[in-house]
Amino acid sequence: MVRKFRVGNPIETDSVVKDIEITNGEIPYFKADASSKSLFIELDQEDKVFGLGETIRGMNKRGWIYTSNNADDPNHTEDKRSLYASQNFFVITSKSRTLGVYIDTPGTVTFDIGYSKFNELTISFEDYDFDIYIIEGPFEGEEKEVKGVVKEFRSIIGRSYIPPRWAFGYGQSRWSYFTADEVREVADKYDEAGIPLDMIYLDIDYMERYKDFTVDDKAFPDFKEFVSEMKNRGIHLVPIIDAGVKIEDGYDVYEEGVEKDYFVKKEDGERLVAAVWPGRVHFPDFLNDEARAWFGNKYKVLLDQGIDGFWNDMNEPAIFYTEDHLKEVFDKIEDYKDKNLDINSFFAFKDLVGSIDNNEADYKRFYHEYKGQKIRHDKVHNLFGYNMTRAAGEAFERLSPDERILMFSRSSYIGMHRYGGIWCGDNKSWWSHLLLNIQQMPALSMCGFLYSGADVGGFGADTTEDLLLRWIAFGIFTPLFRNHSAMGTRKQELYRFESVDKFKKLVELRYALLPYLYSEFMKAALRDEMLFAPLSFEYDDERSGEVEDQLLLGESIMLAPVYKQNETGRYVYLPEDMKMIRFRAYDDYDEEVLSADDHYVKADLGEVLVFVRKGHVLPLAKPENRTDKVSADSLKYICYEADSDNYELYTDDGISRIK
Amino acid sequence: MVRKFRVGNPIETDSVVKDIEITNGEIPYFKADASSKSLFIELDQEDKVFGLGETIRGMNKRGWIYTSNNADDPNHTEDKRSLYASQNFFVITSKSRTLGVYIDTPGTVTFDIGYSKFNELTISFEDYDFDIYIIEGPFEGEEKEVKGVVKEFRSIIGRSYIPPRWAFGYGQSRWSYFTADEVREVADKYDEAGIPLDMIYLDIDYMERYKDFTVDDKAFPDFKEFVSEMKNRGIHLVPIIDAGVKIEDGYDVYEEGVEKDYFVKKEDGERLVAAVWPGRVHFPDFLNDEARAWFGNKYKVLLDQGIDGFWNDMNEPAIFYTEDHLKEVFDKIEDYKDKNLDINSFFAFKDLVGSIDNNEADYKRFYHEYKGQKIRHDKVHNLFGYNMTRAAGEAFERLSPDERILMFSRSSYIGMHRYGGIWCGDNKSWWSHLLLNIQQMPALSMCGFLYSGADVGGFGADTTEDLLLRWIAFGIFTPLFRNHSAMGTRKQELYRFESVDKFKKLVELRYALLPYLYSEFMKAALRDEMLFAPLSFEYDDERSGEVEDQLLLGESIMLAPVYKQNETGRYVYLPEDMKMIRFRAYDDYDEEVLSADDHYVKADLGEVLVFVRKGHVLPLAKPENRTDKVSADSLKYICYEADSDNYELYTDDGISRIK
Repeated sequence: MVRKFRVGNPIETDSVVKDIEITNGEIPYFKADASSKSLFIELDQEDKVFGLGETIRGMNKRGWIYTSNNADDPNHTEDKRSLYASQNFFVITSKSRTLGVYIDTPGTVTFDIGYSKFNELTISFEDYDFDIYIIEGPFEGEEKEVKGVVKEFRSIIGRSYIPPRWAFGYGQSRWSYFTADEVREVADKYDEAGIPLDMIYLDIDYMERYKDFTVDDKAFPDFKEFVSEMKNRGIHLVPIIDAGVKIEDGYDVYEEGVEKDYFVKKEDGERLVAAVWPGRVHFPDFLNDEARAWFGNKYKVLLDQGIDGFWNDMNEPAIFYTEDHLKEVFDKIEDYKDKNLDINSFFAFKDLVGSIDNNEADYKRFYHEYKGQKIRHDKVHNLFGYNMTRAAGEAFERLSPDERILMFSRSSYIGMHRYGGIWCGDNKSWWSHLLLNIQQMPALSMCGFLYSGADVGGFGADTTEDLLLRWIAFGIFTPLFRNHSAMGTRKQELYRFESVDKFKKLVELRYALLPYLYSEFMKAALRDEMLFAPLSFEYDDERSGEVEDQLLLGESIMLAPVYKQNETGRYVYLPEDMKMIRFRAYDDYDEEVLSADDHYVKADLGEVLVFVRKGHVLPLAKPENRTDKVSADSLKYICYEADSDNYELYTDDGISRIK
Repeated sequence: MVRKFRVGNPIETDSVVKDIEITNGEIPYFKADASSKSLFIELDQEDKVFGLGETIRGMNKRGWIYTSNNADDPNHTEDKRSLYASQNFFVITSKSRTLGVYIDTPGTVTFDIGYSKFNELTISFEDYDFDIYIIEGPFEGEEKEVKGVVKEFRSIIGRSYIPPRWAFGYGQSRWSYFTADEVREVADKYDEAGIPLDMIYLDIDYMERYKDFTVDDKAFPDFKEFVSEMKNRGIHLVPIIDAGVKIEDGYDVYEEGVEKDYFVKKEDGERLVAAVWPGRVHFPDFLNDEARAWFGNKYKVLLDQGIDGFWNDMNEPAIFYTEDHLKEVFDKIEDYKDKNLDINSFFAFKDLVGSIDNNEADYKRFYHEYKGQKIRHDKVHNLFGYNMTRAAGEAFERLSPDERILMFSRSSYIGMHRYGGIWCGDNKSWWSHLLLNIQQMPALSMCGFLYSGADVGGFGADTTEDLLLRWIAFGIFTPLFRNHSAMGTRKQELYRFESVDKFKKLVELRYALLPYLYSEFMKAALRDEMLFAPLSFEYDDERSGEVEDQLLLGESIMLAPVYKQNETGRYVYLPEDMKMIRFRAYDDYDEEVLSADDHYVKADLGEVLVFVRKGHVLPLAKPENRTDKVSADSLKYICYEADSDNYELYTDDGISRIK
């Protein structure tokens, strides 16, 4: 059962697609306090809180404050409150109750989940205008109420985005592939090493002066031919698109946008001038239907050159500076110059410059034309990246009505899950971010972001070979499986390391798992179900509720990745008997039935543990170097008290749109 | 056996006190390459590398690069290479070999421990001038060679600093106790809550305009009387001393320093003008014997007012800016102003301002008079904090010949361990920093820094109540046991939280453990032994070598702290049968003998697990609200296949200097 309550006059987000009548009266379970613009609910000691999508900390969100305020912050440390996403759905669950809550409002919302007070969850609003959906069971046919709550929620927000099947291959990326030859070299080296590969991502370097929908034709001459050459090798090039449009005379996207008045403007009607990678840019008003349709159509430029996948970046939007603010900064610097700075003035000066990028005030400098209203950006901030990706997604339905196009985004809001996946932003080569990746996946499933994953190996900072081995060993299970790193950091293409053979076997295992991964993904998408889940979504025992480093993937398996340096094994908790498979390669593994209990299990570098659930089946294909060669015929089945008929394999042509 | 080899002409550090003849010839085990200024040694797969004192990452240092280059960096994330200390001693140990290595040189040294290549350890030098000590067994009477190596190393660097016994009490600190009344309130609230307390720390706020050896007599009127009032309550006030001396006419320390020419100077002979908390400062030349003696004598100002403990801060030295560099920055900003900044210029501008503090070039702007030579600072950088603390320690021997004075420092180098302890710098309220605290303790023991600990609860960022509970539950075992937090963060005095009763019981347990903690500390100090040790320093089995979140404390116990949010238990590995004590309070606990095996054990918030080793004894006193009331008479003994006679209790008056 879903009930929708409305407080104030919320701005429509288009995140819920089902028409649900507003229930009048008090919001149940919560104490609402308009004066503090907050909702309160008491937590029992046993309550776990799951959800909120892409956030920091553990699966159980208790003990911290999370703020929905999409932020381009590359330091995902434990003390941060905002990452790139606002996914305001969570469940409170214990043996005695399960409650789903979705807060629908595009502005800033803060969730204090037992931080200020152990046993209180407080939701505070910048603007006290929102819809709240309360979702409760019982649900017919669901033994676990929490799964019913999620399914019910997912059913009201619409079906999750489905990418082409090849997007389940392995992809290599790096910010700083400067030329077509560098890209060719990556492909060659992968092929030489025999490591499967389906995608090479193009970061901003492929563009002409970072202009969207252009290609640097010196570095990437005859791009269409190059795309075709790579596609003939079975490799898809996946370029990045940024939110900002470079201000440059003669650049058609800029000139058209100006002419048609599609860029966001300041209060005085002047177009906002911000700066991002291209230097000075305007931002398209993705919230304006016409502008969105116009920007979406621009992807055709690349589709026409054979491109069939994209990633949308910088769409919180990230702002390095606005022209207006930079001028203010330089003016203020004059005040500091030639003065004997006292220490407070010095810090003020440092902070002045340090806070130029993603400056809070800048997000109040510009306006959108949204659903017939002029609305200041900060009021709808969390919808920006969503609507950029929606621009693409809606356009692809027109431009590529028959075939799926790969699309994922950095910034997001619930609703965007219908148009693309996400990657978990600019993480770092930290062991703690491997764990974070593990912990984020179930929450993303809850919010409908099924085609997701983190930058394997870590984007910022220098990776280590063992971290990369462990991260790849987990990444082979995430739908988006991309190795990506930042310019200036240690290069982390797999063929560069001593353990190239281990890497090969790991990625091959991914390709062997493809029939399972694709089946489970498609079933989750088509049935509004979880792809990754915390143990307690399936098991009722108390211990399962506390497990933060194991997770269920689809119907058949549980994962327990090793995520600590210099450890060659780990503890695992089995809520029921399971068959443990220790893979060294897709065709080289031990299997052992382990009893419902705690176990310490070995898993050396290059080894992968998979736990097959009782009565379940894990199909394995023969891996190939490209997904399109991997056949779902003549599969091998690893069964635990089940036979192969017990597994419902999903197959399709992998490319046709699913109506 | 210790052998000393010399390469080039190293600058003397005074870290080794034993006279050891230089062995001529090749350095054994290592390949030395003068052209790359590096030493190489191959690592076996089974080799663990322990040591390096205060660094990031795990107990086993394999898989990262560590650079000895003392740094004031408050973001102790996994990718950092330098923290506040340079403690260049490590052991390589496996079943087949154990080798101790100490690199003695005051400049920058980089340890690549299996980062670039899995099985190679590379030591690289900025200047190829160093002493290297190679330490090997066999050692008579030591069953574990690694313990022998450490003991041998410790015997050549001199006895570890011994604080007064009251310094083993609990201390409360916060950057922002602005007045005597605020300090009184802290004491009152602790007493009202019945939580034991021995120390309140005074951060920079107690000083008059941040001038060393002054007291703000408006905020802290009649300081001597206040110190006495607090001491009568059994509470020691422990003020901070910073490295920089404020430039201010009429300020005696400044004027004397100028007159006697004790401040560091630039190449042109002008005194360096840097800025730290007081604004513009000069740095005393702590490396100059006379200046060091002079600065040390200044502590008398506070000793005379009844102060008997200090902490030395900002002594890397931290530099917010130098006057010269700030001028350069403002000049360069002129170039950026009014120009249409392209994006690279914008980043250059941001970086220009962002890198003002602790700027690399600034450390090459000034010189020391050291052992009769004029030496540029960067060549002896890592000795600066060491010699500031040595200034204090040497002075205390003169000024307080009979009684011990509490002293610990932020920056350090081996050798400084004779004059004071360290705290682990400006950590954060992160769960990962609780684990880091656990992992750092054994490495600090190895390097002789016995009186050490981290800021419990975390210095920067907002703590959570559960993090503070878990951190206190570990902090009760560290010699330095201080709750410290930064201005602007959530206040974390224990009486502010819902769980005040749990906090009380935890701190009481500390006081009950005092006879054990003090005995073990003193034995470790007097016998050059480990206080905290990794499991593999005692146990030979393979698993023990990988345990990164348990540690031995003294002869009797093993600790296994819970360090993860929302978990009410943890796994523990027992290399032998042990008696597990689950304390809820010093006088309320379960005990259970657990077999040598893996176990999952419950430990709810407020509970503490202690594992008593077979044949060993844990004495417990009746706790009191001050250490001086805790008696070592009529102890209670928790024994596991031992009786109380098996425990060697160390007692003394807790204050007299030990010759």
